[in-house]
Amino acid sequence: MSLSLIAIICGLLAVIYGFVTSRQVLGASAGNEKMQEIAAAIQEGASAYLGRQYRAIAIVGVVVAILVGWFLGVTSAVGFVIGALLSGVAGYIGMNISVRANVRTAAAAQTGLQQGLTMAFRAGAITGMLVAGLALLAISCFFYFLTDVQGMRPNDRHVIDALVSLAFGASLISIFARLGGGIFTKAADVGADLVGKVEAGIPEDDPRNPAVIADNVGDNVGDCAGMAADLFETYVVTVGATMVLIALLVKSAGDLLMPLMSLPLLIGGVCIITSIIGTYAVRLGSSNNIMGAMYKGFLLTAILSIPAIWLSISHALGGMETLIGADLEGNGGFTGRTLFYCSLLGLIVTALIIWITEYYTSTEYRPVRSIAKASETGHGTNVIQGLAISLESTALPTLVICAGIIIAHQLAGLIGIAFAATAMLALAGMVVALDAYGPVTDNAGGIAEMAGMDDSVREKTDALDAVGNTTKAVTKGYAIGSAGLAALVLFAAFTADLREFFPNLTVNFSLENPYVIVGLLLGALLPYLFGAMGMTAVGRAAGEVVKDVREQFKNNPGIMTYETKPNYARTVDLVTKAAIKEMIIPSLLPVLAPIVVYFVIAMVAGPANAFAAVGALLLGVIVGGLFVAISMTSGGGAWDNAKKYIEDGHHGGKGSDAHKAAVTGDTVGDPYKDTAGPAVNPMIKITNIVALLLLAALAA
Amino acid sequence: MSLSLIAIICGLLAVIYGFVTSRQVLGASAGNEKMQEIAAAIQEGASAYLGRQYRAIAIVGVVVAILVGWFLGVTSAVGFVIGALLSGVAGYIGMNISVRANVRTAAAAQTGLQQGLTMAFRAGAITGMLVAGLALLAISCFFYFLTDVQGMRPNDRHVIDALVSLAFGASLISIFARLGGGIFTKAADVGADLVGKVEAGIPEDDPRNPAVIADNVGDNVGDCAGMAADLFETYVVTVGATMVLIALLVKSAGDLLMPLMSLPLLIGGVCIITSIIGTYAVRLGSSNNIMGAMYKGFLLTAILSIPAIWLSISHALGGMETLIGADLEGNGGFTGRTLFYCSLLGLIVTALIIWITEYYTSTEYRPVRSIAKASETGHGTNVIQGLAISLESTALPTLVICAGIIIAHQLAGLIGIAFAATAMLALAGMVVALDAYGPVTDNAGGIAEMAGMDDSVREKTDALDAVGNTTKAVTKGYAIGSAGLAALVLFAAFTADLREFFPNLTVNFSLENPYVIVGLLLGALLPYLFGAMGMTAVGRAAGEVVKDVREQFKNNPGIMTYETKPNYARTVDLVTKAAIKEMIIPSLLPVLAPIVVYFVIAMVAGPANAFAAVGALLLGVIVGGLFVAISMTSGGGAWDNAKKYIEDGHHGGKGSDAHKAAVTGDTVGDPYKDTAGPAVNPMIKITNIVALLLLAALAA
Repeated sequence: MSLSLIAIICGLLAVIYGFVTSRQVLGASAGNEKMQEIAAAIQEGASAYLGRQYRAIAIVGVVVAILVGWFLGVTSAVGFVIGALLSGVAGYIGMNISVRANVRTAAAAQTGLQQGLTMAFRAGAITGMLVAGLALLAISCFFYFLTDVQGMRPNDRHVIDALVSLAFGASLISIFARLGGGIFTKAADVGADLVGKVEAGIPEDDPRNPAVIADNVGDNVGDCAGMAADLFETYVVTVGATMVLIALLVKSAGDLLMPLMSLPLLIGGVCIITSIIGTYAVRLGSSNNIMGAMYKGFLLTAILSIPAIWLSISHALGGMETLIGADLEGNGGFTGRTLFYCSLLGLIVTALIIWITEYYTSTEYRPVRSIAKASETGHGTNVIQGLAISLESTALPTLVICAGIIIAHQLAGLIGIAFAATAMLALAGMVVALDAYGPVTDNAGGIAEMAGMDDSVREKTDALDAVGNTTKAVTKGYAIGSAGLAALVLFAAFTADLREFFPNLTVNFSLENPYVIVGLLLGALLPYLFGAMGMTAVGRAAGEVVKDVREQFKNNPGIMTYETKPNYARTVDLVTKAAIKEMIIPSLLPVLAPIVVYFVIAMVAGPANAFAAVGALLLGVIVGGLFVAISMTSGGGAWDNAKKYIEDGHHGGKGSDAHKAAVTGDTVGDPYKDTAGPAVNPMIKITNIVALLLLAALAA
Repeated sequence: MSLSLIAIICGLLAVIYGFVTSRQVLGASAGNEKMQEIAAAIQEGASAYLGRQYRAIAIVGVVVAILVGWFLGVTSAVGFVIGALLSGVAGYIGMNISVRANVRTAAAAQTGLQQGLTMAFRAGAITGMLVAGLALLAISCFFYFLTDVQGMRPNDRHVIDALVSLAFGASLISIFARLGGGIFTKAADVGADLVGKVEAGIPEDDPRNPAVIADNVGDNVGDCAGMAADLFETYVVTVGATMVLIALLVKSAGDLLMPLMSLPLLIGGVCIITSIIGTYAVRLGSSNNIMGAMYKGFLLTAILSIPAIWLSISHALGGMETLIGADLEGNGGFTGRTLFYCSLLGLIVTALIIWITEYYTSTEYRPVRSIAKASETGHGTNVIQGLAISLESTALPTLVICAGIIIAHQLAGLIGIAFAATAMLALAGMVVALDAYGPVTDNAGGIAEMAGMDDSVREKTDALDAVGNTTKAVTKGYAIGSAGLAALVLFAAFTADLREFFPNLTVNFSLENPYVIVGLLLGALLPYLFGAMGMTAVGRAAGEVVKDVREQFKNNPGIMTYETKPNYARTVDLVTKAAIKEMIIPSLLPVLAPIVVYFVIAMVAGPANAFAAVGALLLGVIVGGLFVAISMTSGGGAWDNAKKYIEDGHHGGKGSDAHKAAVTGDTVGDPYKDTAGPAVNPMIKITNIVALLLLAALAA
């Protein structure tokens, strides 16, 4: 059986898992009438937003699909459309499960913490398996069709272009979804807090706040649908780039080229199975440690993946010692064994990044506690300490990534780095499961509050939610860390492509070439500018929410006395429009940057320097973006949990001055961690992919 | 007459200007007894701190001097000591003028705004001219001694090593001074605000606050002495690196080598004269526009510098059309005319960066006003908008620097970039004058408040101080912008040195080498880690101030009722100790980083890859550091002036909720703009210089 067919079967297993588990989730009690009424409002808002967002993206998508078809042919255009559609589907299904699991989690939490955890985690696992499964299906079906059905060589230019276009489709959707969802969720969150908590003095998630439904909708369209599209993109781009790099670099593999190119798909496939097994290990121990329960699942998956990857490699390459790629520049080739070590390295990097992110964002350790302590002396010191932690949190991940690059390269050159990245992404199903559980518990807490359920329910959902803040940060650290490796793979694909398309052009990528420096600087600028736009967008949209809510309170005094219900839908509608309007321009920045830089420099200094500058731009984006993204996502998570730590009764507890300062930090962290920071990951990839497509288009 | 002798004469003129003008300043009235008493306390505290700081640095300095002497010989060790000593002297004299001009400015402001401005600006101009003059004297005397007196060839290895060591001495002192002073000033400022304004509810600069003298001392040791050492370093490194690059690259200049290497000194010399002339143009027009008065001085200097630079080049090279350096890789050589165009470009870049920084930090434009507006909705939105502006403020300077690199390189290759950087620094005297006036007016305001002077005096000093916030940010943007160009020059010197020292080693600086990527990532990490350490240090030291002040208030209730005076000296002493303790470890980070990276990578992957990684580290520091530094300094300035804008009566004015939010933003901006941000500039240079010295030491 062809390897891509095995991968397709594993992908289908993930879809079946999703189907079966969603039956379980939907079969559970959805609580009393009031709860269901609130949940319905959230569902309606989320569907309305996602529908409108996808319609807006579709316009851009159709234009780009035509351009791709024009320059690169129909196969590539089909690839683009598949990538775009499935990315949207992953987000859509994830969101749909999430908006139904929230109320069921609230209902289950009435029985106990374990029941609440099970319900929320199952919902997360559905999203996780669907993201990994659909991503794997997208690549492996398309690859299978092109090679086995159409009979193309695996390193045929059509196959390469098609894989890149598939990745482009996934990336383009995901940057819109991440940013649009991120702006929505934080505009609603910040707006609701400002006018509710601060001005009107009513608690979070109070049903009198007209923005409260929008806030809960935001968790689903941002943290769930946006995140799912993002991880779908990361998976497709990383695995696709690994295959493309093999096709471009490994010229002497002979009959082994096909199995070698299918190997990333096979690794992805078997790890979906280990991830499914891992989900069943997530349960509370006697100590009721929620994070510990999560770790059990992740660790089981990681440990089972080791022999699974070994078997995959051994099966694909017909043994672990066959030497391949001895023709590659700068290293003496690699064997199945060295690829296995590189994959193992990918798993270790994943585990280390998870551990480091937990250190920086959990209430258990120094960083979060230092922010909580700094809150005692006021808003200013809270923010200063939070910024210091956010800067500091970049150090260990960077060292881990650098060590990963060096070791993988020593083992198996660029192909080694690509396999390390692929192995990281192979665990995506499990990692997304841990993350997607977060917004479900967050929503469950909101519903419990709005439906006036017993305080003990809110306590349980709060405990689950605190862990959710950490797992959310973990996924972002993981995605951006894998982007650090994937960007190298993409850059290698760029240079290999350049040599293939323009064999007579000598491009000087040396740091001694000033155009390389210019490219690095411009690349590093992109995440800053993008971050600035994202933060400003949230501020502007939140301001509109504040105005709307103030108006509702003023024109309808009955809201405050519970006599009339606020117009939730109006606020949802307003945030929807604002988020969609605000997401367009920043999203186009990474799409247009490589094109503009190429043509401007080509005009001034010729195409060779222009390619050098664009290549450097690709690395500049990752060198700048890695730090911006990690500092924002870890810092934001730390601020959020510092607030939670104080609410748990430290430094004066809820209502104290320290708590007020911590709320400020949390507000600052919101657009950091949920809008600007995570969107940097697809931004990095999109810049790289557009550069690859630019090459192909210029050569056409 | 030899060109370096002309430069020495110009340097001496600057010293004479300083001497004459300081007689004028010191001859003015120092106000009444109470004012003098307060000023004396500030003087005493500042002297005590600077004395202790220099003693602490001296220990490090002696150790490093011995190491330099051991590896590179006595001449280099002497160069190091000269650089270190004069850097210290520049800071010391600047501080001494500043602590005497403050009280005289307060006294002069009683008469009128013009009088206050004149007094404060004269004090700034003294510091400015001394910084530029002493820096020029240090290089030109040393160069004159080595070449004219000792008769060495200008491109003798001893001369090159000595110039690099001189720059190292200046850099090492300046990073300690910038960081130590920065921690002192912001720990005192934040601490005083937190416990005074926020807890005790007394106004800023209230004499009952035990930390108030420490706060005013901080302005002098941080914004004045620290800044002076920083700009001294920037000047020495930029001009020195230009000379070193000429020595290393231009092999075919023949008799023109000596005048070409002296040309940067001559340009520096003539621009000191144009700067002195420019200072006399700083006066208020009929519209009382303070920033306009500053601009008049700067513009006159810049315009006069154009013919002065033309004449210098024409005189040095014997005409504008002689072709030199036709042997340089990648360009067909340069003429006096192209060097003139590059210098002109340096002046234009300086003007543009000043203008952009003013746009982002002045109360007149959108950025600051948007932060002020965001303060209406609370602390959180103020900080979010401030962070967005700080991210955004990096965009235009980066584009200007990139354009500068491209144009200068098109005109005259790397030497062109070096001359553009030199021309930027040639205006340092004027730029420092604009900056150093700031802390004087800040102090004058403090003294006016503490001495209970008429409110009209405080109003005038406040108006002067608001402009000071902008000019402070301008200098930092200017220093870091010039560092962007200087880092390229230093990197070029690194690669040229590498080829000279290790002719048989092929080092691959291509972006395709993974060790280059690792180097870039590690380099970009340094400013983040350094920034985190700086911010944390301020937080910790400010916390100690808060504790001390609380204790004084508690044990001595008479303070609040004006019955007893607080123990100012105790707080000053405490901050002194804390700042000196905190500055050591972060300062060693850039010194040790290139050395550690070299040896670790050499062990793993051999010396060629180690040199590639270290080279990439040097560019990574600038690619990461440029953004960290600009965003922190511009963002911090914007926050500060947003507060001032509200205090001027907008958005509710002083005491409103918007004002409280703006105070939070100001507090957050404090360590951003005055501790972590500006210290990134010497950090970048020190990493580069240590790498150059490492090469020389490895080759020895």
